[in-house]
Amino acid sequence: MSTIFTKIIKGEIPSHKIAENDLFYAFLDIRPIAPGHTLVIPKEEVDHFFDMNDDNLNHILKFAQPIVKAIESAIPCKRVGSMIAGLEVPHAHLHLVPIISMQEFSFAYAKQAQQEDLITIREKILKYL
Amino acid sequence: MSTIFTKIIKGEIPSHKIAENDLFYAFLDIRPIAPGHTLVIPKEEVDHFFDMNDDNLNHILKFAQPIVKAIESAIPCKRVGSMIAGLEVPHAHLHLVPIISMQEFSFAYAKQAQQEDLITIREKILKYL
Repeated sequence: MSTIFTKIIKGEIPSHKIAENDLFYAFLDIRPIAPGHTLVIPKEEVDHFFDMNDDNLNHILKFAQPIVKAIESAIPCKRVGSMIAGLEVPHAHLHLVPIISMQEFSFAYAKQAQQEDLITIREKILKYL
Repeated sequence: MSTIFTKIIKGEIPSHKIAENDLFYAFLDIRPIAPGHTLVIPKEEVDHFFDMNDDNLNHILKFAQPIVKAIESAIPCKRVGSMIAGLEVPHAHLHLVPIISMQEFSFAYAKQAQQEDLITIREKILKYL
């Protein structure tokens, strides 16, 4: 059975898409730690991030780089941090999170976003991409 | 002036080294979120992780991959997670942290380690590298 992320890539589940290429898809997390929190996922369905094939492993950060810069330009924050955890959805994903302090850079601060806020935030980020 | 991490790479400050190649250096964090917490740093001195040159950006995850697998074999955990934050030391670094739950995957849980514990943990991890 497809993961929820594969359904998002295929458009079977709607998402607030930020960027896409042959290997990866990026979209806003609907349960953000902070506004602008974006997920980058490989199109290849693999559970553990570090089990990704070499092509994915060697290109995902370069794909994420302009997205990080766009979020940092669009959202007030000290810097965009990254997290790879993977205990929830069994499809490798890289979190890009605007951070204000090290203490608040935690899933303990994640909460459901409003659709209208996600639409506005996506538009802000896309201006810098 | 060199960053504290450049001094570690040069051996001017001692560290519990885990791995090294031409581009990167990996060593145990002395203030771990959990035992086995390892830092991977580029030898090039750059503050923001996503300002690393393409060579570093495209190879750091592949360098980290066997270290992640070794920590997962050596330390009881659900998985090794990764974090890039960078608000403290102005030298890009990737945290590799053995995680038990999403909630505990946070710098709020970091605390100073004992030298003798770091020596033992390093030996355990190196058995799998």
